[in-house]
Amino acid sequence: IPSLAARLKAGESVFSAWSSIPDSQTVELVAGLDFGAVTLDMQHGGHHEDSVLRGIGGIRLNGRHPLVRIPVGRFDMASRALDMGAEAVIAPMVNSLEDARAFASAMKYPPVGLRSWGPSFAMPRAGTTDGQTWLETANAGTVAFAMIETRQALTALDDILEVEGIDGVLVGPSDFSIAWSNGRTVDPALEDMMPAIATIAEKARAIGKHAAIYVVDPRLVGRFYAMGYRLFAMGSEAA
Amino acid sequence: IPSLAARLKAGESVFSAWSSIPDSQTVELVAGLDFGAVTLDMQHGGHHEDSVLRGIGGIRLNGRHPLVRIPVGRFDMASRALDMGAEAVIAPMVNSLEDARAFASAMKYPPVGLRSWGPSFAMPRAGTTDGQTWLETANAGTVAFAMIETRQALTALDDILEVEGIDGVLVGPSDFSIAWSNGRTVDPALEDMMPAIATIAEKARAIGKHAAIYVVDPRLVGRFYAMGYRLFAMGSEAA
Amino acid sequence: IPSLAARLKAGESVFSAWSSIPDSQTVELVAGLDFGAVTLDMQHGGHHEDSVLRGIGGIRLNGRHPLVRIPVGRFDMASRALDMGAEAVIAPMVNSLEDARAFASAMKYPPVGLRSWGPSFAMPRAGTTDGQTWLETANAGTVAFAMIETRQALTALDDILEVEGIDGVLVGPSDFSIAWSNGRTVDPALEDMMPAIATIAEKARAIGKHAAIYVVDPRLVGRFYAMGYRLFAMGSEAA
Amino acid sequence: IPSLAARLKAGESVFSAWSSIPDSQTVELVAGLDFGAVTLDMQHGGHHEDSVLRGIGGIRLNGRHPLVRIPVGRFDMASRALDMGAEAVIAPMVNSLEDARAFASAMKYPPVGLRSWGPSFAMPRAGTTDGQTWLETANAGTVAFAMIETRQALTALDDILEVEGIDGVLVGPSDFSIAWSNGRTVDPALEDMMPAIATIAEKARAIGKHAAIYVVDPRLVGRFYAMGYRLFAMGSEAA
Amino acid sequence: IPSLAARLKAGESVFSAWSSIPDSQTVELVAGLDFGAVTLDMQHGGHHEDSVLRGIGGIRLNGRHPLVRIPVGRFDMASRALDMGAEAVIAPMVNSLEDARAFASAMKYPPVGLRSWGPSFAMPRAGTTDGQTWLETANAGTVAFAMIETRQALTALDDILEVEGIDGVLVGPSDFSIAWSNGRTVDPALEDMMPAIATIAEKARAIGKHAAIYVVDPRLVGRFYAMGYRLFAMGSEAA
Amino acid sequence: IPSLAARLKAGESVFSAWSSIPDSQTVELVAGLDFGAVTLDMQHGGHHEDSVLRGIGGIRLNGRHPLVRIPVGRFDMASRALDMGAEAVIAPMVNSLEDARAFASAMKYPPVGLRSWGPSFAMPRAGTTDGQTWLETANAGTVAFAMIETRQALTALDDILEVEGIDGVLVGPSDFSIAWSNGRTVDPALEDMMPAIATIAEKARAIGKHAAIYVVDPRLVGRFYAMGYRLFAMGSEAA
Ligand SMILES: [Mg+2]
Ligand SMILES: [Mg+2]
Ligand SMILES: [Mg+2]
Ligand SMILES: [Mg+2]
Ligand SMILES: [Mg+2]
Ligand SMILES: [Mg+2]
Repeated sequence: IPSLAARLKAGESVFSAWSSIPDSQTVELVAGLDFGAVTLDMQHGGHHEDSVLRGIGGIRLNGRHPLVRIPVGRFDMASRALDMGAEAVIAPMVNSLEDARAFASAMKYPPVGLRSWGPSFAMPRAGTTDGQTWLETANAGTVAFAMIETRQALTALDDILEVEGIDGVLVGPSDFSIAWSNGRTVDPALEDMMPAIATIAEKARAIGKHAAIYVVDPRLVGRFYAMGYRLFAMGSEAA
Repeated sequence: IPSLAARLKAGESVFSAWSSIPDSQTVELVAGLDFGAVTLDMQHGGHHEDSVLRGIGGIRLNGRHPLVRIPVGRFDMASRALDMGAEAVIAPMVNSLEDARAFASAMKYPPVGLRSWGPSFAMPRAGTTDGQTWLETANAGTVAFAMIETRQALTALDDILEVEGIDGVLVGPSDFSIAWSNGRTVDPALEDMMPAIATIAEKARAIGKHAAIYVVDPRLVGRFYAMGYRLFAMGSEAA
Repeated sequence: IPSLAARLKAGESVFSAWSSIPDSQTVELVAGLDFGAVTLDMQHGGHHEDSVLRGIGGIRLNGRHPLVRIPVGRFDMASRALDMGAEAVIAPMVNSLEDARAFASAMKYPPVGLRSWGPSFAMPRAGTTDGQTWLETANAGTVAFAMIETRQALTALDDILEVEGIDGVLVGPSDFSIAWSNGRTVDPALEDMMPAIATIAEKARAIGKHAAIYVVDPRLVGRFYAMGYRLFAMGSEAA
Repeated sequence: IPSLAARLKAGESVFSAWSSIPDSQTVELVAGLDFGAVTLDMQHGGHHEDSVLRGIGGIRLNGRHPLVRIPVGRFDMASRALDMGAEAVIAPMVNSLEDARAFASAMKYPPVGLRSWGPSFAMPRAGTTDGQTWLETANAGTVAFAMIETRQALTALDDILEVEGIDGVLVGPSDFSIAWSNGRTVDPALEDMMPAIATIAEKARAIGKHAAIYVVDPRLVGRFYAMGYRLFAMGSEAA
Repeated sequence: IPSLAARLKAGESVFSAWSSIPDSQTVELVAGLDFGAVTLDMQHGGHHEDSVLRGIGGIRLNGRHPLVRIPVGRFDMASRALDMGAEAVIAPMVNSLEDARAFASAMKYPPVGLRSWGPSFAMPRAGTTDGQTWLETANAGTVAFAMIETRQALTALDDILEVEGIDGVLVGPSDFSIAWSNGRTVDPALEDMMPAIATIAEKARAIGKHAAIYVVDPRLVGRFYAMGYRLFAMGSEAA
Repeated sequence: IPSLAARLKAGESVFSAWSSIPDSQTVELVAGLDFGAVTLDMQHGGHHEDSVLRGIGGIRLNGRHPLVRIPVGRFDMASRALDMGAEAVIAPMVNSLEDARAFASAMKYPPVGLRSWGPSFAMPRAGTTDGQTWLETANAGTVAFAMIETRQALTALDDILEVEGIDGVLVGPSDFSIAWSNGRTVDPALEDMMPAIATIAEKARAIGKHAAIYVVDPRLVGRFYAMGYRLFAMGSEAA
């Protein structure tokens, strides 16, 4: 089966289930649902190092793409998620050029970044022992999504998008609505912010990068698709 | 039952048991003891993301207030502890204005801080589904304790106390004694440092913030109470 | 039995098994192999806070020295590993003087560093309750290894070695080969870089600090020994 | 809140959610659904001793009644489930008078049965330390459901119902359909067997015992209610 | 890929790795070795309900056949292992006709046995939702191995082999050597008992059932093959 | 250090701590208390296969003797506890000669019993690889305690004591008091039953077997000692 990176590059739409409960058997259940990918959430969900390592097994067993959302600023975990076999990592609150560079550095091997060598679980899970080929292909085969969910991030968007190693952006509409309303309201469908959300996808696509978004209300998928979004992270197993 | 924030605001004294073993059933046992709160220690205790998530369940089952002490500088975990249902977070080694601001930012939603939206476990555990109200009340309903336990922290105390989003200070007397003696002795009852400890409570109370302290010897509670301390974190289940 | 610090100080060679699977029973099995030490790897291996805490028990049960490699930049975990009973901590990607200082600060009590007091598991596991003696001896009894595995690190090597609290360096030859080849190849036996690797040991020994190295091919041990290396971290249980 | 035993005695209908995944956090999620009880399934679900112990905490936290279905013939586990705080135990494949007696013996203290003393978790979870009262009230306060799901069980039904300590029967319609069709079909709504299912409830009610049933298709609840069933175990979180 | 039952029916030789450590990630590592199957040992190994459930995932992820050896007399676990997705179950110490019947009953659906309906994990893991077909094919698609490892078992061998639902025998040569020497020696290669071991395979094959054996010394495989053995369980990950 | 069997044979008194919480780190904490042994309770405590396997490590790390109380009738677990490294097993509710024989059979290798070969964890934990010596010494080196805690057991006491492989009896005074009062009272210090409790020790000692007792009130130790008891199981960590 093609990789997530390949699918996104080919312009396919990908829907990801969302997993908050840190338990490999529950992840396997979620992975049995009819989604192409599963995101393990370490930021607001309960996932942690152990549940990510084990959860990725159940996701692959079901032929889905494993994604991991790391906690804020925990770029050490970006590298570790890749070593465990994640195909993509989502970093929340990438609010500045500096954040984006640190994230990209953890995601990509030299000379692009400073990701350290040691795909201890990823290589066996991919069924290969050829390290040299891994080194040569990993940077293109993994996807780094920077979350855009504050006014600062919007301001810095052009800079963030230009960072080599940032493969796409992912919009967090709940946080974005709080930012947009200066802390007054949380509403992932806030109409006021929709033009800004459209702009984010437009800019990302213009520079050849992916546009992704967290979707609380499935009826919005069509509208986001029209804006250029192609990866849709859908709700939570707890919902 | 009233929240920890409400109790402290009302001037009540709160005693917290201390939990070091990362196991939900052991936490439930500790929560069955006669304390009003239980602190899960991630700094020197063995608690981690999984044990905090599951441990909070057993604390709530016993009607106690759950507090979490995060590791040094791990402000991502401050937000996560709140998302898991903690009522308060204790940050160790808050030694500068910058530390205090970073901690407060992780603890409070905009416009006070940059806490990201996603109370995945906290809302269900509180029995509510009303996000808007949560957003409006969470900042006041959760408590951020900055630990004062070095000479640097003492020097920066006024600045730290003025940071919006820092709700109180918590004195770590063992580390403070090491600092006070320039590394020569560890003695949580070191007489020399008692005036400084009194000053900390005094300054906190003067600005309307909470004074808390870790208590190794229960006989000191009265003395600390007289200084203005109201939250007393008591020993460890390992003691 | 003598401590790891004592053995290294006495010039003994120490071989460490390498553990990647975060499970205490598997660690106990690895600890039963004929190595003097076991390293629990949190960077590329799957170890995490819980598996380190529990794994150290099985290492000690077999009379081996427990070492922990922390994730990149996670100096909070350096202190925690010591509190759990590790005898040494390996920090990857120490690429600058600033990195080295932050690592040393987390490893050593004042006045050398800012390690916070609370050896909750280490003291019982060492069979002592005498905190004052612990404070006085811990800095000398624990070993901080800074990993040298990039060109930046090589450039900063003299500065890194001079940091009080850094007890030795550990070379990561896979990453070093990637760096040496500017991202073109991964080869832990890359002949080109051997002179640089010899220099690292030479400089460390000259200033009275330990030289350690990760060894993928056991036949290289003799050559590294001749360079001055004395701690050899050997492969992985997954190999 | 009234106990499950009290509710059933009062003739109330109780709906139980069904839990198959052995993870306390997933159980807590299931317990948050709008059911009055949660059954932890050790027979066909993945629950085991540890997940039952920890799962019951999350069930109680949500104010639901905890039930446990034990594996076939594992009457040691019936007693243990009660010691952990279960309010009811469901024993599958109670096919003979001998089975029923062994089950009742494990469920009830002397002189009714031979349940051994040691409610280590049940008493603290119920908030009491009064053992004597516990001894005097536990037999009436816990509910033993014998599953009727084979032709042998139907034949032995009168004998089973007369066993002191058997508080009710629970029909397993899938197994019953396999039995009824001599292994040819599995169909929990098999029309042919409905009269037999009606008879089971009728006989149980006639002798003053509870009638319960596992419900795959919610539309059958009304029909089963009319037959006399009052406890309805509903599907699985995996469905 | 063909099932284990199909491979054995076709006369293929199957080599099984042996897993003793109850940890899903360690099982996944063992499953990555070059064996066609992995046996999870609950009798002398540390496997338990939870590790079997989760371990089977990692075995399937590597395209191996999952087998489970249950503890002595724990036929409830035979059914549960199948519900979790095991393709075969090995029952130790099947010493009598009665033992064999109880084991077969737990392994096969009516009318052959009394296995209860509920393949909660097996069906999703096999990628099907068609219960009726499952019912019709499961008895032929799963393999029940009765261990022959005592003099009593040898005496009862003909009776055991004739039990419908017993699909094969598996020789435990260590226990058999203890029995053969009346408790004087443990030697899985004891020459004296080899004729008896040859007889076991001969009788099993004569009645159309499988012959399997635990192999401590790989050099014996050829000899056992010549006797008619086709499933070879090889050592342990702890060896 | 001498084994538990050796200590008891030498007439030494042994005090055992009691562990109910199934968590290896909590067990290690209990093992750090000043007792010579630790009993892991699977009957009324929460211990299970996994926690026993891992808990024994922490007990040995502290130089204590590990004992395991199995659930009622779970003799498969008696063998498994020994394979995990327990030095003694306590079987509750041994009420008949048949119970005693089944227990002894699981505890002792042929020709005494039918314990199956496979000390997978016990041998490495004892630091040996010599199977033949293990076979020859294990029966004498492990201790089987049959619990006497009902009137039936008292009646069958002489028969139980004569079973080869039963090394001693352990009195459960709470259950015994319930039995003695025909279900009316639970009182581990019930004066009425004391003569019977004295008789149990007397008979055991007369035939050269060990007398052990669970002690709720430490003040009774002297009295029980005078009766001939030498192993005292003391309370619970939950007390
Ligand atoms: Mg967000
Ligand atoms: Mg401190
Ligand atoms: Mg490296
Ligand atoms: Mg059924
Ligand atoms: Mg055997
Ligand atoms: Mg008892």
